[in-house]
Amino acid sequence: MTIFSASSTAPVNIATLKYWGKRDKLLNLPTNSSISVTLSQNDLRTLTTASCSADFDSDKLWLNGKLESLESVRSQACLADLRGLREKVEAKDESLPKLSQYKLHIVSENNFPTAAGLASSAAGFAALVSAIAKLYKLPEDMSELSKIARKGSGSACRSLFGGFVAWEMGDLENGEDSKAVEVAPLSHWPTMKAAILVVSDDKKDTPSTSGMQQTVATSDLFQHRITEVVPKRFEEMKKAILAKDFEKFAELTMKDSNSFHAVCLDSYPPIFYLNDTSKQVIKLIHRLNEQEGKTIAAYTFDAGPNAVIYYDEINEKKVLGLIYNYFSQVAGWEKYSKDVSTLDKIEVQGTNPDIYKGVSKVILTSIGNGPQETTDSLINDQGLPKSG
Amino acid sequence: MTIFSASSTAPVNIATLKYWGKRDKLLNLPTNSSISVTLSQNDLRTLTTASCSADFDSDKLWLNGKLESLESVRSQACLADLRGLREKVEAKDESLPKLSQYKLHIVSENNFPTAAGLASSAAGFAALVSAIAKLYKLPEDMSELSKIARKGSGSACRSLFGGFVAWEMGDLENGEDSKAVEVAPLSHWPTMKAAILVVSDDKKDTPSTSGMQQTVATSDLFQHRITEVVPKRFEEMKKAILAKDFEKFAELTMKDSNSFHAVCLDSYPPIFYLNDTSKQVIKLIHRLNEQEGKTIAAYTFDAGPNAVIYYDEINEKKVLGLIYNYFSQVAGWEKYSKDVSTLDKIEVQGTNPDIYKGVSKVILTSIGNGPQETTDSLINDQGLPKSG
Repeated sequence: MTIFSASSTAPVNIATLKYWGKRDKLLNLPTNSSISVTLSQNDLRTLTTASCSADFDSDKLWLNGKLESLESVRSQACLADLRGLREKVEAKDESLPKLSQYKLHIVSENNFPTAAGLASSAAGFAALVSAIAKLYKLPEDMSELSKIARKGSGSACRSLFGGFVAWEMGDLENGEDSKAVEVAPLSHWPTMKAAILVVSDDKKDTPSTSGMQQTVATSDLFQHRITEVVPKRFEEMKKAILAKDFEKFAELTMKDSNSFHAVCLDSYPPIFYLNDTSKQVIKLIHRLNEQEGKTIAAYTFDAGPNAVIYYDEINEKKVLGLIYNYFSQVAGWEKYSKDVSTLDKIEVQGTNPDIYKGVSKVILTSIGNGPQETTDSLINDQGLPKSG
Repeated sequence: MTIFSASSTAPVNIATLKYWGKRDKLLNLPTNSSISVTLSQNDLRTLTTASCSADFDSDKLWLNGKLESLESVRSQACLADLRGLREKVEAKDESLPKLSQYKLHIVSENNFPTAAGLASSAAGFAALVSAIAKLYKLPEDMSELSKIARKGSGSACRSLFGGFVAWEMGDLENGEDSKAVEVAPLSHWPTMKAAILVVSDDKKDTPSTSGMQQTVATSDLFQHRITEVVPKRFEEMKKAILAKDFEKFAELTMKDSNSFHAVCLDSYPPIFYLNDTSKQVIKLIHRLNEQEGKTIAAYTFDAGPNAVIYYDEINEKKVLGLIYNYFSQVAGWEKYSKDVSTLDKIEVQGTNPDIYKGVSKVILTSIGNGPQETTDSLINDQGLPKSG
């Protein structure tokens, strides 16, 4: 059996200017541009091996060891686009194998729990697209490929770059100008760190696609956010990143997280992603910044209660000192590369000492690179997932 | 000792279109018009006796048995305005006693716990103004007096009327056109009921005055709320009230509560008044309405976590049936005028059975009348509070 295969990793990204609202649901075209920080793949990444063979009967996907459907409109759109690009490659050189006609076997694994609500679909579609692009030896650059990943999951387009990434919303109806671009590479500001507090929550959140549709259709404040607030903030945030102005970057990040959750609350019925623990973390960060007399940490929350706290490494002793002081009992500190006893013991007034009970895990990570090719393969010589 | 005295009660009102934002802090001039329902004084009222005498040394206020200061700018503004109007009365008829020159002793009592966050300052200033207006035999109508109450506490102006009340924001810089007017009297829609869930909360809320200033100064969505969203909703809500269209009234009420809390969340730092229990109550009401296939109940939340649920008496078996089902263990049902066993047992899917733990008290009440003169006096013949 001849099997062609290639593997790629892709990172998680956490938006600092939020994507919320689709102007085209099928093409995942957003109502506003957004910006994100790509996180290190040491802590959070998807590894995907894409393979194809004339001997495969059907397209198949194994995700974290489980056979999953590729039948969704979104997955189908990605595969069709990638095969279309491969056909062009094959048309130019008849000697190439007709991979575009072969069925695909795709195996994908996350190095973090999918259930934790950590943007796994973004990393997943980015890894899928970059592994197949490599398998097909496509000449397209990352921005071009980002348009395909976008069709799988909107925010996936931003996971095709490392560092600081913008998703330009574009104007065209066909979405051909709605793509990710690099704002600045990891090397521009490598000291950007992130601490993720995984917040326990018993309730099921509103899925983001239906939540977005609900906001677009019902929120009276939403149009103002996308036409007035975000376009201005988009330019300001890019400028703050290029200037490595942490205080400005942090303020914009926190304001945009709050603005996004505000339009969720203004939806009808209202959508809530922040819980009481999330709100306590928000207060903790504001009190830390007040106490320090400058903004040294920024929170942001996606469509769930988890807090992502950005800070510059220069303030690590303080920011992690605060977090360790309140969350030392939570799992995750064993992965801290330094000695926790070197952290400052930072306290802020009015904090409930039971706050740690709402958090199940701390993930200490940093800004990271985009997709990486790898020789690690998840597929055996039968075209099936390697066992565990 | 000759003591002149008069007593008046005043009700609590709960806004269905929220007042949030001052354009003039000293005069309590709002950035938008608002609408409220006045609640029955059987359950929630302030009783105030105002007295004056040539023998009193200084202005004094006893609130719920405790001597309180009248030195605040707000209280001083109310007393000065009322004395000014009395002077005009005295100028027209020289035979009248010069009450405007006498010091005042004011005694005020609430029939509900002040601490519960139930708009007690609105009832308090409305009762103070109407008791002194009666003592001074002022000819001004309630809308005129509402401008004085407004200077004490913005929303107090709405407590000078029963039924459905609008506070027209006005345009003038001196506030002379910023006053309460009746939208419809109690008799127009006497079957409007309210159930208040007093939500336990350990944290101190942001005081509303400073919260409003923070929102006005920092929220990017706020200007859109006051210039676009509220003016339209103000007209629609008056129309719904006049048409006794509960479904429309309810939808507008819920949307406006959410919009108000959204701009709080969009403030920087964000302001949170809803807690996890509040959010569960919101979901409970939406699920009830979905299940019934029509909107039979509306929630609204002021600057705190307490829920006020409006419903028409025609749906009492269902709405109270739902509330009793989830909150039967909470104090307050002993005051229900009917037999709780006659209520429907309404369940909605996905409700946490522990929801009652976040609620300390249920207050079952209804729409009510404005201030009432009364012969009950809280002051003895020495000009001091009658003992307990």
